[in-house]
Amino acid sequence: MAKRIAYLGPAGTYTQEAALRYDASAELIPFTSPAAVAMAVGSGMADEGVVAIENSLEGSVTDTLDLLIQESRLFICHELVLPIEHCLMGKPGTEATQLQVIYSHPQALAQCRRFLERCFPKAQLVASLSTTAAVQDMKESKSMAAAIAPRRAAEIYGAQVLAKDIQDNSANVTRFVVLTHADHEPTGKDKTSLCFAFTSDVPGLLYQAIGHFAKRGINLAKIESRPTKMGLGTYIFLIDCEGHREDAPLKEALEELRAQTSMLRVFGSYPRWQG
Amino acid sequence: MAKRIAYLGPAGTYTQEAALRYDASAELIPFTSPAAVAMAVGSGMADEGVVAIENSLEGSVTDTLDLLIQESRLFICHELVLPIEHCLMGKPGTEATQLQVIYSHPQALAQCRRFLERCFPKAQLVASLSTTAAVQDMKESKSMAAAIAPRRAAEIYGAQVLAKDIQDNSANVTRFVVLTHADHEPTGKDKTSLCFAFTSDVPGLLYQAIGHFAKRGINLAKIESRPTKMGLGTYIFLIDCEGHREDAPLKEALEELRAQTSMLRVFGSYPRWQG
Repeated sequence: MAKRIAYLGPAGTYTQEAALRYDASAELIPFTSPAAVAMAVGSGMADEGVVAIENSLEGSVTDTLDLLIQESRLFICHELVLPIEHCLMGKPGTEATQLQVIYSHPQALAQCRRFLERCFPKAQLVASLSTTAAVQDMKESKSMAAAIAPRRAAEIYGAQVLAKDIQDNSANVTRFVVLTHADHEPTGKDKTSLCFAFTSDVPGLLYQAIGHFAKRGINLAKIESRPTKMGLGTYIFLIDCEGHREDAPLKEALEELRAQTSMLRVFGSYPRWQG
Repeated sequence: MAKRIAYLGPAGTYTQEAALRYDASAELIPFTSPAAVAMAVGSGMADEGVVAIENSLEGSVTDTLDLLIQESRLFICHELVLPIEHCLMGKPGTEATQLQVIYSHPQALAQCRRFLERCFPKAQLVASLSTTAAVQDMKESKSMAAAIAPRRAAEIYGAQVLAKDIQDNSANVTRFVVLTHADHEPTGKDKTSLCFAFTSDVPGLLYQAIGHFAKRGINLAKIESRPTKMGLGTYIFLIDCEGHREDAPLKEALEELRAQTSMLRVFGSYPRWQG
């Protein structure tokens, strides 16, 4: 039986591209939110789930971070980094010069801001719930409309590509993670993701916490804070670091960190993306 | 002449409420993005600008953080923390039981998820560009529609409030900052916001950086990372700490930090919000 992979749909999203890149032979099942993808894996409806976690321009996908913090049954077993190439697409026969309305997800509109301001200063920009929902909104629109979406969406929904690679910054890549019930065994070139919190805000607690890594020469690839949702000023810290949680130095650092924090959750260790 | 304050409009947004709370006698001028607010202040079209920077449930407003990093002429001179109270509103005479479509900004829809799932499981949720755009979308809709927006928007746009305080979590507050050409003189109860970056990613650099604060007992209220937009894995770190940049301990910490980093920018020191 083919592996079943849940992803943030509908068909045609960048997350579907990532899922295909990860396992082209899998059965791909679309869900409408990162939380639904996680629930599908948690409940056994799917074997693994693919969600976006970070974009090089926009930063973290906070829905995914909050999900990892809350959904304690899932672990990260892989990461993938893919280029994001936005295309402008319309109904077949659309004249780019006459566009009145351009639909897309607000993040995609933001990533193409310069292109849109220069080429379509008078077009109305309209928010859609996803880049593929934008293609559907475009198809149903009664105005001369276009959508910004992945090229795959044009193939799937029968749209015509009017312009490609229209994002302002060519360093636009998204990092995806694969979620399942266990993380990956050590490969020697690994990365570990985790989060922790403190009950008090004594000065220097965070300094001590990252000291456990620094004094062992473990590089932090990323540090981020998310609200605890209990009010402003209390945070959960998320760290990506080099190494596997079973490597001796990281194992020691995690033990010290656990003793010092009120909550520590390791999201998993997994092979570092090599491109 | 009244002070001119730029804010993220249109009229009826939470940011307008914050601007009114900050200075009820000012002339308020709406702009369509945090970047436009900053440009209005930078160019002299407005004296000060008010933008949201952080929500207790959703975390940082990344547009505002990126703006502070890029727009080097502006400083933070004040902060305000206001409760966010979402209302469900419709055209006068709307029956809540017959709603087919509910419009709002995706963040507001997310903050009322539980209310919407329980009370309107079959209503279609549609994204709008802001909570006040949602009220306009609702008024133009041909379906039985409602919008989630601040109570003020109902007054301004002549809508009827169907339900109030519908957010899932009552600890929903937003922090706003006031931007202008200089920060605030010391008051004894201050806060300082800053960002910094490194050119190399030697393990332990961030540890050293926050050590300058920790070893002087300066509490960090917040630490955050934002992408440099040069590719994944390179970050700008943002810190909020206690104290004024002219207080001796913080002044020393900032000097040491400047010597250690490739970029340091102090967004300003300002009175800590007392509620």
